[in-house]
Amino acid sequence: MPERFVLVLAGGRGERFWPWSSHERPKQLLPLARDGRSLLAATVERALRVVPRDHVLIMTAADLVDAVAHECPGTVVLGEPVARNTAPAIAAASAWFRDELAFAVMPADHAIDDVAAFTADLERAFRAAETEPVLVTFGIRPRGAETNFGYIRLGASLGGPLHRVAAFKEKPARSRAEAWVAAGDHLWNSGVFVWRRSVFMDALAAAKPELARVFRTFSFGGSREGFQQRLAEMLPGCEAISVDYAVLEHAANTVVIEASFDWDDLGSWSAWARRQARDARGNVLFGDAVAVDCDGCVVVGEGGTAAAVGLRDTVVVNANGAALACPLERSEQVRQVSEAVRARSHA
Amino acid sequence: MPERFVLVLAGGRGERFWPWSSHERPKQLLPLARDGRSLLAATVERALRVVPRDHVLIMTAADLVDAVAHECPGTVVLGEPVARNTAPAIAAASAWFRDELAFAVMPADHAIDDVAAFTADLERAFRAAETEPVLVTFGIRPRGAETNFGYIRLGASLGGPLHRVAAFKEKPARSRAEAWVAAGDHLWNSGVFVWRRSVFMDALAAAKPELARVFRTFSFGGSREGFQQRLAEMLPGCEAISVDYAVLEHAANTVVIEASFDWDDLGSWSAWARRQARDARGNVLFGDAVAVDCDGCVVVGEGGTAAAVGLRDTVVVNANGAALACPLERSEQVRQVSEAVRARSHA
Repeated sequence: MPERFVLVLAGGRGERFWPWSSHERPKQLLPLARDGRSLLAATVERALRVVPRDHVLIMTAADLVDAVAHECPGTVVLGEPVARNTAPAIAAASAWFRDELAFAVMPADHAIDDVAAFTADLERAFRAAETEPVLVTFGIRPRGAETNFGYIRLGASLGGPLHRVAAFKEKPARSRAEAWVAAGDHLWNSGVFVWRRSVFMDALAAAKPELARVFRTFSFGGSREGFQQRLAEMLPGCEAISVDYAVLEHAANTVVIEASFDWDDLGSWSAWARRQARDARGNVLFGDAVAVDCDGCVVVGEGGTAAAVGLRDTVVVNANGAALACPLERSEQVRQVSEAVRARSHA
Repeated sequence: MPERFVLVLAGGRGERFWPWSSHERPKQLLPLARDGRSLLAATVERALRVVPRDHVLIMTAADLVDAVAHECPGTVVLGEPVARNTAPAIAAASAWFRDELAFAVMPADHAIDDVAAFTADLERAFRAAETEPVLVTFGIRPRGAETNFGYIRLGASLGGPLHRVAAFKEKPARSRAEAWVAAGDHLWNSGVFVWRRSVFMDALAAAKPELARVFRTFSFGGSREGFQQRLAEMLPGCEAISVDYAVLEHAANTVVIEASFDWDDLGSWSAWARRQARDARGNVLFGDAVAVDCDGCVVVGEGGTAAAVGLRDTVVVNANGAALACPLERSEQVRQVSEAVRARSHA
């Protein structure tokens, strides 16, 4: 049996939690997990149920390496000098691993609370990946017709929760999502994967040969410093592309496990709020927060008071010296503001 | 003819503009005037149309004397060691003046833009006060059935805009306010007054003899320091009461001029916003403010970004390290928050 590793992808910048999230402290480092830990720390905690600490590799942005290493002591933390999405990051991790082994890929900024179910599902996925040349994905039974997730169409059953993948589907229009959810044959793509290094690299070579070549010939002398230096040379020239688009959509050997664990990508203030404790009027109050005559609001005060008066279903945030107010149902638009503010501050 | 003076009452704390207003920088010191000056500076500017600079006396809170003096150089600034509302403040000013003279009383935190009309009206008021033993008030033709203002019922005409006062009315219920406005015989009480010192003190003595006695026997040796020291001894024992309740409601010699100038007490975020320039979607943006897909909002960023997304008719403020979001129509409730926050910070 090959050894098992876990690759945690922690390169995101999480604009949607502006102004709480920042370039220096993106979503995965915020205390967004239900127990008040960071999503990254919670992710690593789940990884440690299946592998030892030094078998956890975290890929993050180069300028976040120190913060990530501080948050997750004892893990291996590597920094990307530029962001190139998940396919190059996973290929780079494969180069770091070198030996034949199986590894799980976990996004650092998703919420999963049922650790026992997650551990059992992951064990099943590792067994499948270690015995068959397959790319194992996890699908989530949809709770609604979300248009911000990719979907996986279930193929033939392989026994229990394991199915072949009939197709990966990009973020759909509302009507398609509704049809898929009604039919019951599509799952959300969780972004959690398990495979053997060699199986992944073969699939990458078939779909994106130039990207595979970069990381198959990636000689770095075995040291962390050597790896970082070589990555700084090679990564900027790589295509920025997700592993879904680069590999999974093209591979014939993908399988999917319908997850028995809960899952949320916490893609917005409203997604986070759904998992938080609420007061008698349905408000989520976090930090230095005041709500007067409010219902269903989310009020977050970090470093200063945030006060909401007479509002309904609205998020009010005071963090990092900036203030935001937005209806919860519009909270995916927050990214527009953070981009506008960032563009202005660089102007 | 007696000399003319102006007394500016600048003792308020303006909780309704929290978090922009603070104990250290209350409403009258914020740049709320249309031209971006403070309301206090704009008030003094109007006073200077009718009296020289050293005939402007500003009564404020003792801890605001330095800030007020800095804002209004060349004026006389006196500090109250405790807040006792307007009747004791005006009586104290009368003690400071000593000699027989006529003076206007002007709140420091109201907005009046038509300076020419104001100057003409004030000249008329001074002439009336100097020739007759009357207490001259200014009434504002109501723009709506406001329940946050006192009203003046017009009595017999004395020629032109001058009328006897039939009665002063406290803040009314909505239905009464509507009836008064419909009848057309009630004006808003602007809080701007003109009278001779002796006429005011006689009216005070008739209605509140103990308060009049304090300031008729108020010997302080003529110096600012002596006055401040004596005020610190005497003011704490005075009843806290407005000049309306203490004097005007009881006096038979009150008259009212229907103002030809515009006037607003700027009692809330919405009152302020009504007088500001708006963007194409009706938003007021002040300072470091961003509005994405908003209509009719008021966004104020002082010392940090304030961002509103997808909101309508809502005020969003980032100031003094705190954030507020509130529907404009509820902005009078802001005082509740500022009180709650202040109580908590003192707990």
